[in-house]
Amino acid sequence: MTFQFDVYKPLTEESAISLLKKLHFFAEDEHVTCREIGDGNLNLVFQMSTQGSTKKWIVKQALPYAKVVGESWPLTLKRAKIESEALLQFAKFTPHLVPEVLYSNETLALTIMEDLSHLSIARTGLIKGDSYPNLGKDIGTFLAHILFKTSDLGLSPTEKKEKAQQFSNPELCKITEDLVFTDPFFDHDTNDFEPELSEKVEQLWKEDELKLEVAKLKRLFLTNGDALIHGDLHTGSIFASEHETKIIDPEFAFYGPFGFDLGHFIANLLFNALRRPPAQTELFGFIHDTWETFSSVFTSLWKEDKNNPFLQVNGYLDYTLRTVWQDALGFAGCEMIRRTIGLAHVADLDTIEESELRIRTKEIALDIGRSLILNRVEIKNVQDLHEFYIENNEFLGNNARTV
Amino acid sequence: MTFQFDVYKPLTEESAISLLKKLHFFAEDEHVTCREIGDGNLNLVFQMSTQGSTKKWIVKQALPYAKVVGESWPLTLKRAKIESEALLQFAKFTPHLVPEVLYSNETLALTIMEDLSHLSIARTGLIKGDSYPNLGKDIGTFLAHILFKTSDLGLSPTEKKEKAQQFSNPELCKITEDLVFTDPFFDHDTNDFEPELSEKVEQLWKEDELKLEVAKLKRLFLTNGDALIHGDLHTGSIFASEHETKIIDPEFAFYGPFGFDLGHFIANLLFNALRRPPAQTELFGFIHDTWETFSSVFTSLWKEDKNNPFLQVNGYLDYTLRTVWQDALGFAGCEMIRRTIGLAHVADLDTIEESELRIRTKEIALDIGRSLILNRVEIKNVQDLHEFYIENNEFLGNNARTV
Repeated sequence: MTFQFDVYKPLTEESAISLLKKLHFFAEDEHVTCREIGDGNLNLVFQMSTQGSTKKWIVKQALPYAKVVGESWPLTLKRAKIESEALLQFAKFTPHLVPEVLYSNETLALTIMEDLSHLSIARTGLIKGDSYPNLGKDIGTFLAHILFKTSDLGLSPTEKKEKAQQFSNPELCKITEDLVFTDPFFDHDTNDFEPELSEKVEQLWKEDELKLEVAKLKRLFLTNGDALIHGDLHTGSIFASEHETKIIDPEFAFYGPFGFDLGHFIANLLFNALRRPPAQTELFGFIHDTWETFSSVFTSLWKEDKNNPFLQVNGYLDYTLRTVWQDALGFAGCEMIRRTIGLAHVADLDTIEESELRIRTKEIALDIGRSLILNRVEIKNVQDLHEFYIENNEFLGNNARTV
Repeated sequence: MTFQFDVYKPLTEESAISLLKKLHFFAEDEHVTCREIGDGNLNLVFQMSTQGSTKKWIVKQALPYAKVVGESWPLTLKRAKIESEALLQFAKFTPHLVPEVLYSNETLALTIMEDLSHLSIARTGLIKGDSYPNLGKDIGTFLAHILFKTSDLGLSPTEKKEKAQQFSNPELCKITEDLVFTDPFFDHDTNDFEPELSEKVEQLWKEDELKLEVAKLKRLFLTNGDALIHGDLHTGSIFASEHETKIIDPEFAFYGPFGFDLGHFIANLLFNALRRPPAQTELFGFIHDTWETFSSVFTSLWKEDKNNPFLQVNGYLDYTLRTVWQDALGFAGCEMIRRTIGLAHVADLDTIEESELRIRTKEIALDIGRSLILNRVEIKNVQDLHEFYIENNEFLGNNARTV
């Protein structure tokens, strides 16, 4: 069977095998097992292996549409190129924290990468109560490197502007602009929440002070090209085990604000803390590890630099770290609200079976999200955040100590 | 003589005539007068006309280098394309405030536009004491339109990102990054100032608090792609008469922060106020007109919009205007410092003949620049700015009333 490289067509299990043989990932006469394991909403994902060999590959191919909760709309195939190029970019700094990319093809909108099926999706594992002792440290290391090294701190202004062009990603950004920053704060038909939450949601929609802060955060997202960010760094975009962490799916990558990824990661750890009150200390430990590692690695990179005279100016590093933290809290707040009442939800909350508990937990998620947005300047550090979490969350009755 | 359109070559007066005949700006048999009137540092500028006709054209061609104060370095020809496209873009909103572009050619790095020799360069006119009753209002109108209509306020996020790519201008931005935001704040060999200023300059260089604020402003310039800005809106980039205002030379145009152009314009009016103490009231009148017109036109455009739900949120317009104003004051401060001690100076100060007065005026310019950077949050409006100017400037002994 001949394989056409010059025209886009969704792969089948058969044509995926044919492609990988053509590309010499497998020998022509090898018996290859291939399974499509994607959810079919955005991408095809083929897992391929041969018996009696360690060779295992993932072929991820973008579909020309997105499906979410029954709706379907066309979506650029360019996201496959963004994803593979972002993974390659991240691999330059932290190769141990992303899957290895072995091949990519822009026309076919596909990437061949290492198989990570020995790991679990962190969200799923966390809900089950799996232990990820390196998770916080690894995400902190990852963020410190990508934020420093792809920004004007780590690149010449010309290189940085070239990269910002390379990673221009208007269609995927539009999804975030609408679904994270806009629709959940107005009565929009993409929103999705239980009728029991209506009263609280309508209160949010009436609150101009909150919406003003969201407008500022949305403006940051729209205009502030600090660094190449992942763009969708929730716990479902992380494969993990006790020993390993791998960040996947950077289809939303673009030049955006420093605090965005950190904020989304924190929000998703908070969802898990709401889901599992007894694990609160552990989850705040992750947030603590993330921030401590991020700030210490970022500080080292900053201090190593000898070319940029502003990096020697007293107070500039502190100012930068404070900005990252404050903006991250604001973005975390938006993420908490939109994952509770917007189009795309999180399993941490949605799979709480007992209905009253689920509603009550979602109300707390909304309260915390709202307060993070409004109080992001006052919450100075992880300890403040934890105290503040406990105050907003007396219902769940945690007696866990703050970190 | 045949004219080659497909290869860059600097024009001569003769080949410029040949080109415009070829393009039917003049008939083959017309007697055309052509004069090169550029300063030869960055561009060739040919003024062309025929006797007994009103036909008069300007041909502006970029040279592949820049010369400033005897130094020469290579500089992208792409700036000619940026300039003509920016003029065309601005003409969509305020055609009466920019020269009409009739032809442009990327390969030849040239633009043919209407001749404006009936007007004067505003800086030169202001130094002479000419009257420009519309200057403030016109610049305010211009800025309101370009900032609103090229930003995420006036464009869809996708259109805006496309335009930001079109106007990516790393080489010219680098000049501003170095000469405005970096070199003047450190002991750099591009700096240029009288030995009498050394002590004061060395004090500036030691002041970490100041340099921290400059670092924040530089970061805004590097990362904040609010709108298509002119990028070099000083009084030498404006042709004016009693009745007309024309903004020229947007070679530095790119997607930058809202407050940048306004700040540069204000700084250059302040230089003129320092040069001509008796005209202080008139010059603050221009600043007043600029801000009042800017904010009222910007507010009208904002209120006309019915698509963006955030524009209805109480406080967002005020926040946006406040941000523009504050950032503008900071940028004005950087411009005042760099035009006094950096590579490129202004005639308003440099042509003060009496040496002691010149030095003293430059010291005041540095004081005002420094204080604008440090106090940009406290100075809430034009009246505050005027009071503050008088406080910093008792030496020049003005008794002009505040506006």
